[in-house]
Amino acid sequence: MSETKLIYFFGDGKAEGDASMKELLGGKGANLAEMTNLGIPVPPGFTIATEVCDMFYKNNRQYPEGLNKELKDTLSKLEALMGKKLGDPKDPLLVSVRSGAAVSMPGMMDTILNLGMNDEAVEGLSKITGNPRFAWDAYRRFIQMFSNVALGMDINVFEDILEDMREKKGVENDNELSAEDLKELVGLYKIAFKGNQNEDFPQDPVIQLQAAIDAVFGSWNNPKAIKYRDINGIKALKGTAVNVQSMVFGNFGDDSGTGVCFSRDPSTGENYFYGEYLMNAQGEDVVAGIRTPAKLSELADQDEKIYGQLVDIKDKLETHYRDMQDMEFTIQQGNLFILQTRNGKRTGASAVKVAVDMAKEGLITKEEAMFRVDADQLDQLFHPMIAPKVKKTLKPLAKGLNASPGAATGKIVFTADEAELWVERGDTKVMLVRKETSPDDIGGMHVAQGILTSTGGMTSHAAVVARGMGRPCVAGCKDVVIAGKTMKVDGKEFKEGDWITIDGTTGEVFEGQVETIAPEMSEELTDFLSWADDIRLADEREGLEQKGFLVRTNADQPEDAVLARSLGAEGIGLCRTEHMFFDAGKLEHFQQMIVADTTEDRKKALSKILDLQKADFKGIFKAMSGLPVTVRLLDPPLHEFVPQTDDDIAKIAKMAGITAEALSEKIDALHEHNPMLGHRGCRLGVTYPEMYDMQVEAIITAAVEVEAEGDEVHPEIMIPLVGTWQELSILRANAEAVIAKVFDKTKKKVDYKIGTMIEIPRAALTADEVAEHADFFSFGTNDLTQMTFGFSRDDAGAFLPEYVKQGILEADPTAKLDQTGVGKLVSIAAELGRGVKSDLKLGICGEHGGEPSSIDFCYRNNLNYVSCSPFRVPIARHAAAQAVLNNK
Amino acid sequence: MSETKLIYFFGDGKAEGDASMKELLGGKGANLAEMTNLGIPVPPGFTIATEVCDMFYKNNRQYPEGLNKELKDTLSKLEALMGKKLGDPKDPLLVSVRSGAAVSMPGMMDTILNLGMNDEAVEGLSKITGNPRFAWDAYRRFIQMFSNVALGMDINVFEDILEDMREKKGVENDNELSAEDLKELVGLYKIAFKGNQNEDFPQDPVIQLQAAIDAVFGSWNNPKAIKYRDINGIKALKGTAVNVQSMVFGNFGDDSGTGVCFSRDPSTGENYFYGEYLMNAQGEDVVAGIRTPAKLSELADQDEKIYGQLVDIKDKLETHYRDMQDMEFTIQQGNLFILQTRNGKRTGASAVKVAVDMAKEGLITKEEAMFRVDADQLDQLFHPMIAPKVKKTLKPLAKGLNASPGAATGKIVFTADEAELWVERGDTKVMLVRKETSPDDIGGMHVAQGILTSTGGMTSHAAVVARGMGRPCVAGCKDVVIAGKTMKVDGKEFKEGDWITIDGTTGEVFEGQVETIAPEMSEELTDFLSWADDIRLADEREGLEQKGFLVRTNADQPEDAVLARSLGAEGIGLCRTEHMFFDAGKLEHFQQMIVADTTEDRKKALSKILDLQKADFKGIFKAMSGLPVTVRLLDPPLHEFVPQTDDDIAKIAKMAGITAEALSEKIDALHEHNPMLGHRGCRLGVTYPEMYDMQVEAIITAAVEVEAEGDEVHPEIMIPLVGTWQELSILRANAEAVIAKVFDKTKKKVDYKIGTMIEIPRAALTADEVAEHADFFSFGTNDLTQMTFGFSRDDAGAFLPEYVKQGILEADPTAKLDQTGVGKLVSIAAELGRGVKSDLKLGICGEHGGEPSSIDFCYRNNLNYVSCSPFRVPIARHAAAQAVLNNK
Repeated sequence: MSETKLIYFFGDGKAEGDASMKELLGGKGANLAEMTNLGIPVPPGFTIATEVCDMFYKNNRQYPEGLNKELKDTLSKLEALMGKKLGDPKDPLLVSVRSGAAVSMPGMMDTILNLGMNDEAVEGLSKITGNPRFAWDAYRRFIQMFSNVALGMDINVFEDILEDMREKKGVENDNELSAEDLKELVGLYKIAFKGNQNEDFPQDPVIQLQAAIDAVFGSWNNPKAIKYRDINGIKALKGTAVNVQSMVFGNFGDDSGTGVCFSRDPSTGENYFYGEYLMNAQGEDVVAGIRTPAKLSELADQDEKIYGQLVDIKDKLETHYRDMQDMEFTIQQGNLFILQTRNGKRTGASAVKVAVDMAKEGLITKEEAMFRVDADQLDQLFHPMIAPKVKKTLKPLAKGLNASPGAATGKIVFTADEAELWVERGDTKVMLVRKETSPDDIGGMHVAQGILTSTGGMTSHAAVVARGMGRPCVAGCKDVVIAGKTMKVDGKEFKEGDWITIDGTTGEVFEGQVETIAPEMSEELTDFLSWADDIRLADEREGLEQKGFLVRTNADQPEDAVLARSLGAEGIGLCRTEHMFFDAGKLEHFQQMIVADTTEDRKKALSKILDLQKADFKGIFKAMSGLPVTVRLLDPPLHEFVPQTDDDIAKIAKMAGITAEALSEKIDALHEHNPMLGHRGCRLGVTYPEMYDMQVEAIITAAVEVEAEGDEVHPEIMIPLVGTWQELSILRANAEAVIAKVFDKTKKKVDYKIGTMIEIPRAALTADEVAEHADFFSFGTNDLTQMTFGFSRDDAGAFLPEYVKQGILEADPTAKLDQTGVGKLVSIAAELGRGVKSDLKLGICGEHGGEPSSIDFCYRNNLNYVSCSPFRVPIARHAAAQAVLNNK
Repeated sequence: MSETKLIYFFGDGKAEGDASMKELLGGKGANLAEMTNLGIPVPPGFTIATEVCDMFYKNNRQYPEGLNKELKDTLSKLEALMGKKLGDPKDPLLVSVRSGAAVSMPGMMDTILNLGMNDEAVEGLSKITGNPRFAWDAYRRFIQMFSNVALGMDINVFEDILEDMREKKGVENDNELSAEDLKELVGLYKIAFKGNQNEDFPQDPVIQLQAAIDAVFGSWNNPKAIKYRDINGIKALKGTAVNVQSMVFGNFGDDSGTGVCFSRDPSTGENYFYGEYLMNAQGEDVVAGIRTPAKLSELADQDEKIYGQLVDIKDKLETHYRDMQDMEFTIQQGNLFILQTRNGKRTGASAVKVAVDMAKEGLITKEEAMFRVDADQLDQLFHPMIAPKVKKTLKPLAKGLNASPGAATGKIVFTADEAELWVERGDTKVMLVRKETSPDDIGGMHVAQGILTSTGGMTSHAAVVARGMGRPCVAGCKDVVIAGKTMKVDGKEFKEGDWITIDGTTGEVFEGQVETIAPEMSEELTDFLSWADDIRLADEREGLEQKGFLVRTNADQPEDAVLARSLGAEGIGLCRTEHMFFDAGKLEHFQQMIVADTTEDRKKALSKILDLQKADFKGIFKAMSGLPVTVRLLDPPLHEFVPQTDDDIAKIAKMAGITAEALSEKIDALHEHNPMLGHRGCRLGVTYPEMYDMQVEAIITAAVEVEAEGDEVHPEIMIPLVGTWQELSILRANAEAVIAKVFDKTKKKVDYKIGTMIEIPRAALTADEVAEHADFFSFGTNDLTQMTFGFSRDDAGAFLPEYVKQGILEADPTAKLDQTGVGKLVSIAAELGRGVKSDLKLGICGEHGGEPSSIDFCYRNNLNYVSCSPFRVPIARHAAAQAVLNNK
């Protein structure tokens, strides 16, 4: 006999294992043991430890010596407890066999039920239950599962036979087949088995059991499981355990039944025992929906005793696991069994309410409450959604990327101009449908209810801008084919003015007008977020002067700033200025500036924008009174601003006093092969200093004026796309000269900072040099990710989905910061920067600033704040609190 | 009196300083002292040390206490030695004042000559020389230089007065003005001076001297000098010295004269005393070319004694400085003075011959010889050039970038197809003139004598490919305007068939057919390179198994490989395979593969290319028998290969069995916003594995066949554009499966390696992970530079020149590796990679592999080899030897 214990028994109120032994018993085994120890009536059984799997592979697929004996002994113990024997022709013990490692792992063997069935046992079961149909059905299911799951036979072999039988009998559903039919089916299944395996279907339950155990251990090293472990970096595990558990049946008669229940309402979170059950039924019947299950409260009337037991168990399990439980139970001939308990899945509203209630009840701490809600759940609460009941009835037309959350319904328009026109004339509910959007479309995007694009990824222009605006957006919806003023999806044609509905949270597109429900800020949600704030604001990190981990917002317009502040933003981390140039009254002057030949002409055109831009900044500064506002100077290449249509070209040419042809030539000259890697950002500032000078003048004059009007202002001027310290040094000097002039002229001063975006790999690598000239760094991880990976988000659609599918990338790195590669640059830059300037302010303003795992990374790298779009601010506040707790 | 010695005297055969005291005396002062000590007749003088400059600035622009006295004493010593006194009305001492720091530095004060002149001294000088014209000219020059250089007056004030005088006197040249005219001019100059300075022109020579010294020290901190030091990272210097030296004149009469001479022939390197001189003349007269100077050999006849002295001095200086000397001398009234000696500028041929001769003479070591030739000089010797005599007579039409060295002359053609047509019909001398080139143009580029493009930078397609082929190329020549089949330059129109000539070494473009001379491999050149090989091949680096620092070549075709091997290449570091697809017979099949819908169709199309590609590889393997050949799998995005014209589209559509419209749609779908960051490199390998499979099969089958035919083959398969280890892992597994099949089928094996290009920042940052799956890394610094800087070489033309001009970048980083930023990634990757795999082979195959400073960097980072285009191989061999010596 082996020295090591290999098998752990559970049953009759005590188990040899417990929840702490996941490593050895797997998650499932440890949990069954735990429940047994709690006195919960769990069908007895045993777990073959993961160490057996380890030994099996280390010893050239040989089981450890003592296993056989230990298995025999434990099986006897189980039989004794159950008063039944495996293969007993009169009253057979049936068991289930399941795999279960310490972490859940797709690719491994799933479940075999009813093991122990054979030609004799089926007869015994028929008699003892008085239900031959039940017995034969159990047998044929066992043959099917065993052959497929344990021996790898094609499931379709059996499905086809079943199908033929249904046809022959002229029935539609399996449950219309009689006992005789099923018996015939078992005969056919056995023939098919022999045809495939060259031997009879095994009748000896011990052989069945051994084969099932072999299958579980064998599945540990099948290619899918290996690949899964490889990709997810799972290395330390010993192997899988095997759980063998006695079967119970809820379809033994009218004193039997089955159900599922939740310790609190999974939709609303209310503390109410919620569930459904069916008497004389199996678990799958509840799910299949052929019979309508009863509400759990009815069980109280029907069987007070059982209901009482169930309530006790529910209370015990919730208290024990300290979370809302989702339980499956079976009543077999008046005896209650719990087959499973797990933390219940829940809606966002429920998650928040359960967490806050439980913390208030003292069941969990406020800190624990933070981990009871995830970002997606929280996000649901800040966007309109399609009412869940309505949604159930809908079939999506198409599915794209869930680019910006929330549901929206509107009439289709195909251009941004149309969108604006329709809204102006009172047709306010429009849905902007485009192949892709460009900065030109901002106005139309702003007035639209939502945006649907047929190309582009999660960080395409449409997606980024929509998230910034809080506009629902489905992007890259390839099934949508747009041609002129029609859109074809799935064979249907839609015209301008037709209604469609999008769900930006899921990426779905629906036909017609669908009712959406508005988000609401519950009392629990307010509590929840204020707890999160308490945690993150009280935090102190070693070597960092600033207390707390702050959340700013990316906002370009006063109304966005107001919204973000109401959602908890502690400043603006990124105010893009390019959108300002697209406003009527500014674009024309800016276009003239672009096509001007001399510095003088450029200055003249810019001077016309100065006051208008100053007014924009004043609105933002007022909205953020008392808080810092980081303004990024102009970033995109100039060709994004040039006139596109012949009319516009003619108009601008006339204003500039040149011919339309000459203007067209100038526009052609601005064309770039790789605009992302072209003449933009601070490169414009170096070659056309007057442009940045104008912007700095507008920012600082606005700041001075707003302070004079009684608000406190902290402008932070951010120079984009810096790759060398020299660029920053030159542009900082230029900016400071302009600022000095403004102070001189107004006889007033304001507090200001000048810093840079770290978005070029070289800037990160030489951050010590760059930091000498910067008051702050803001990590622009959108561009940094694209340049570090060497792909453009606009083009990566051709291979990125395949990369994620093949597991080359765990996630789209434009959505979730790649901590290994891009993150390394962030770490390098943070360290080098702080190395020369310990009080260097660090933040992030890429899209990752609103993504929880990235926020955690930012915390660990000692960033002062994260910045994200207004609607992500609450999610970031929560994730920031989680980060603080995670790293304690 | 100050404790420190502040002023260092030189004269009468001995000096207080010497050449080792550059830090203290500046380069010029130390050299004048050195020559004096050698007994060379140098006009006596003294040097005010750099420490005075340091003290001056440290002490709030106050001179150290003792300076005045020391200056007075040293001046007296000089006057005593010269037998003349500063300001003596009878025989005045005149001096020059010059700045001079330890390193040469633009922006600092230049030279003031004839200091000591005043209203009395001019009369004395007139009398003593009997040459009033000389005296007055010296005076007016002094006023002009002093006012401008020391006091910052506008030089044009004086030039305008001089111009007026010439007009008034009706003469063309200054030397036609009489003594009286010049006297009048002095009067006018003094009035102008007073007008500007509000005081009379200083008559006291001591005041003049003090002002000149003030000006030199002041110039140390003028903005231009500060900026220069800033940009060039010059920090440790104390300041500038001031050199005061007595004047000598070669125009004192017929016993006076002046000349320049070289200790060996600067054109050919022959050991022959070469020079020119003029009697009764000043240095600038020799340069100005108004009188024709005599050959130095004539001086032997004219004045044997002086000539003998000069030869002695020449021998002494060459032996002392151990290099060919460029000397300036003046004979004043029968006395020889050496005004300057420096290492002489020379042609490439001369540099090599002088270095090799001197090493053979024992004057220098072979190691020292390596540093006597620079890369540009060496490069000259491997390309045809316009004969220097002819070139003098030509005026360039336009100037572009010197993209690929060598001169070429040919008839203009405007398309690659025309180039091929013309050459086929026997018109072999064509010059391909294009806006820019694309992979489609390879054929035409190959047959052309040279390439001229109007757009694109040093690493544009045209430039890179031309360098690879050794074809002369002038790129980005903006003055050339191409429209259809005409080219306009500088107002002139050129048509197809007109002759032009380009000089790719200088970037110049000339009208008409110009004679070029072919390169020749001299005996000295052969010796020189074999010495370089001895040095680099014997080198052993710590922690590196491989002995020596190797040079490979980038070659895509057998003939390039043969050429490179003849130039010393030790293998191929980069064989690009995309060019192979453009060949007739392959492109069509490849295009069919691109537009195919299914894997099956793609495989069918690829199978047609397999044998053709195998033949390409066989040729290359044979040419490189015994040496490693790194083959890069397909890299460019597929849209580079699609048919462009309607005819081609129709043809390919027909072959593929689809409509031209359908094909056009497919082609449109391949369009990318940022092709550089798009679907290319290993991303193609991941999404279309059959493409790489075909290439691997062709490579390995070729290798097996070539070995069977008796040659030794070491193929190295390189996967491009890897950003994650997962990509490499998958593609390596795919390649190994194909290789196993080939070995199986042929029953033969060859030695092979699989590795990756490190050209994506992320790959460098995660090189430890990547190295686990790689046998070698080859740094693709072209793309790595672009991605690390975040600019595309195709678009950077809009700002890069401005960046270099403003000193933001020291050099174009696509030409010279940016060691600070991009280099950091290379270092990180090399360290991480070798950290997990100590025998990981490291090389570089970007353009930088042929650039000396980058080669030095590669050596320091323990790379095994560099790889460059065939014609750069000798340059790299030399630079590699220099790197070995530099880092000893």
